[in-house]
Amino acid sequence: MFRMYDLIEKKKNGEELTKEEIEFIVQGYTDGSIYDYQMSAFLMAVYFQGMTKQETFELTMAMEASGDTLDLSEIKGVKVDKHSTGGVGDKTTLVLAPMIAALDVPVAKMSGRGLGHTGGTIDKLEAFPGFLTSLPEETFIQNVNEHKIAVAGQTKNLAPADKKIYALRDATACVNSIPLIASSIMSKKLASGADGICLDVKVGSGAFMKNEADAQCLAKTMVDIGAFANKKVVAVLTNMDEPLGNAVGNTLEVMEAIDSLKGNGPKDLMEVVFALGSQMLLMAGRASSEEEANKLLQSTIDSGAAYDKFKEFVKIQGGNSEDVDHMESLLSAKVVSDVVALKDGYVAKIEAEQIGHASMIMGGGRASKEDDIDLSVGIILRKKVGDFVKANEPIATVYANDSSLWEKAKEEILDSYQFSDTKTQGKPMVIKTIK
Amino acid sequence: MFRMYDLIEKKKNGEELTKEEIEFIVQGYTDGSIYDYQMSAFLMAVYFQGMTKQETFELTMAMEASGDTLDLSEIKGVKVDKHSTGGVGDKTTLVLAPMIAALDVPVAKMSGRGLGHTGGTIDKLEAFPGFLTSLPEETFIQNVNEHKIAVAGQTKNLAPADKKIYALRDATACVNSIPLIASSIMSKKLASGADGICLDVKVGSGAFMKNEADAQCLAKTMVDIGAFANKKVVAVLTNMDEPLGNAVGNTLEVMEAIDSLKGNGPKDLMEVVFALGSQMLLMAGRASSEEEANKLLQSTIDSGAAYDKFKEFVKIQGGNSEDVDHMESLLSAKVVSDVVALKDGYVAKIEAEQIGHASMIMGGGRASKEDDIDLSVGIILRKKVGDFVKANEPIATVYANDSSLWEKAKEEILDSYQFSDTKTQGKPMVIKTIK
Repeated sequence: MFRMYDLIEKKKNGEELTKEEIEFIVQGYTDGSIYDYQMSAFLMAVYFQGMTKQETFELTMAMEASGDTLDLSEIKGVKVDKHSTGGVGDKTTLVLAPMIAALDVPVAKMSGRGLGHTGGTIDKLEAFPGFLTSLPEETFIQNVNEHKIAVAGQTKNLAPADKKIYALRDATACVNSIPLIASSIMSKKLASGADGICLDVKVGSGAFMKNEADAQCLAKTMVDIGAFANKKVVAVLTNMDEPLGNAVGNTLEVMEAIDSLKGNGPKDLMEVVFALGSQMLLMAGRASSEEEANKLLQSTIDSGAAYDKFKEFVKIQGGNSEDVDHMESLLSAKVVSDVVALKDGYVAKIEAEQIGHASMIMGGGRASKEDDIDLSVGIILRKKVGDFVKANEPIATVYANDSSLWEKAKEEILDSYQFSDTKTQGKPMVIKTIK
Repeated sequence: MFRMYDLIEKKKNGEELTKEEIEFIVQGYTDGSIYDYQMSAFLMAVYFQGMTKQETFELTMAMEASGDTLDLSEIKGVKVDKHSTGGVGDKTTLVLAPMIAALDVPVAKMSGRGLGHTGGTIDKLEAFPGFLTSLPEETFIQNVNEHKIAVAGQTKNLAPADKKIYALRDATACVNSIPLIASSIMSKKLASGADGICLDVKVGSGAFMKNEADAQCLAKTMVDIGAFANKKVVAVLTNMDEPLGNAVGNTLEVMEAIDSLKGNGPKDLMEVVFALGSQMLLMAGRASSEEEANKLLQSTIDSGAAYDKFKEFVKIQGGNSEDVDHMESLLSAKVVSDVVALKDGYVAKIEAEQIGHASMIMGGGRASKEDDIDLSVGIILRKKVGDFVKANEPIATVYANDSSLWEKAKEEILDSYQFSDTKTQGKPMVIKTIK
């Protein structure tokens, strides 16, 4: 019908591809009739020529259609999913999910394992002994209907075309293309069957999108795909110039999430939680204004309902809810020691990616898919941007299982902190909401 | 040492690659340690970002170094090679080589077989029964020393990197990139060991380069590579808006070349022959001005020396020199008939590529490497741009071996001719010389 050669040429020349042409490419690449070397040339041409809104939508739909889709129709109520483009110390889902569920809005979240500085949400939840990250579809749906919450790894084959295309982009320096990123995220989210999707688009030196213009373009592209697909999609641009909250690491992040549910959350983290949560409640029809939504969210913390929901959640997925009250007992890092400042000054900047890397090299994250994760290692930042620190005062506490790795992490942390004589005003956490 | 991923990224971002990085890519791709899908992404990035002069030179040298090189040092005198970027009806080498050799300038030409509308020069020479296109290196050198002329197919493995890269470009719509074209041509030419190289860069609707600006850029790029490599390189831009000369097809083109050596060459063909020939004589130091060179060239035709040299050449490479005098007896096409004009008018345009395609579908050229060529089929154009033609007057004679293919060729030819009520002035054949 079509020849891949002609379609590469067409995109290379900046022409718009049709729905049928895009379907031909996605199907052909998925079934192996289009070669890797043709697809990678095509993707590089997309990098340079971009894609129109219509093309990006067709690409998304073709990737979604390449595999299974989840049917969540048996779940009562408006199901709202949440996705983050990824940042260091991002434990938002762990705080947000029980808050939303405590307000009787169903949270049916499919989550992935992660590559990089820490694991993904389900890796982190494995900090609870016995916790089941793989649930049969029936149980998943039953849990949401009865308890309003379930978080599990993907069991079905969602958007396999995306998986294959992403791997190729990752090997050919073709990741940073907005239509390719947007269609990759949205194909999986659409296949996950939620009624509404709330996107946390991170922007800053620690995020994939380094500047606001790019982040806004990505956010707008994903919101537009949602509109084409008749799904409610809202994107919130949030700051990722320094790590989010204070904890980086798996068990450490779960502990910070639990603290947050008790009302002791770091200010930056809670701002992101409330910004996303309020959009989710609006989408679900649970609140009619951001103000009302924020009040409802606060009430789940003040009343202890969100904390209780988290315990309930851990229990129904096979964990011991008592562990939630004594999380520190699960932290088994052998080498725990502070990193201290070398001189006086205000913290001017913390390179988030370097902090993430320090966590990863201690075993807290995967360098490749096959790696195991050491859940108990990580970093607690004691000082963040704008804080004053004296020489020899701790800037961070490092949890390691090996003293030489502790040393390496220390070096990275010291290197990641920049100081100044005057106080730096941090940027606002919530930059913009795009609907 | 390097990672291909980083080098793709670097080129994608428009940065200049170093000699060592380019060598890593060419060596790695040739030995298989760099995957096709990475190389095709890289080539597409080169298409969009281009290459600096220095990069293009390093790429050329790395491809040249990937295989054998010919050592022509045992040939006495200044060896001047000639290369055409390819056009329809281009039998220039067949006319030029004996003229140059007749002036005692050595012609040691390695030539390829061709894909497309007709075969390459050595395919055409197989019109002579017994003609050897494959010569042992010793014989090749001996023939040039004794007779000043040898034309043979490549026996050595010249620039295998180019072969592999070209095949990939051809499958991924990455052919039309000037640094890639220039380095591909020049890597093979440099490996062929000549002292000077005269390039015929075709420009026009029937050429790869459709406009003068692109052709000039390609020509300049190749001349610059020559300067970097300390080789004399001259490029002549010549017109390819309509087929060159009147004959298109293998044996038919040899016949036209023989006619030209007898002094009956078509004006357009001879203009190109003289333009290239005079540059070759200047490079070889055989003439000190274009005027002198042109006089010398004309003398080889007037005296019959070039014609005699051609007969000598056919004989020493295993053919029968008598055949040169009776070439028409070798033409065995079964269906020979004229295509006539449908109405009166001046020929305004002849689509060269369509004429070439008409020749190819009759079997005169290869659609893929494995195809055999039918040497006796082809087309003689009876009318060219600017000529007046009456209804029912022949515009072309078609030589086919199958009447249904004759019909198909006829349709293509009729379609390729455009007429007007006023006489169109053809463009000059020789547009520019770049040294």
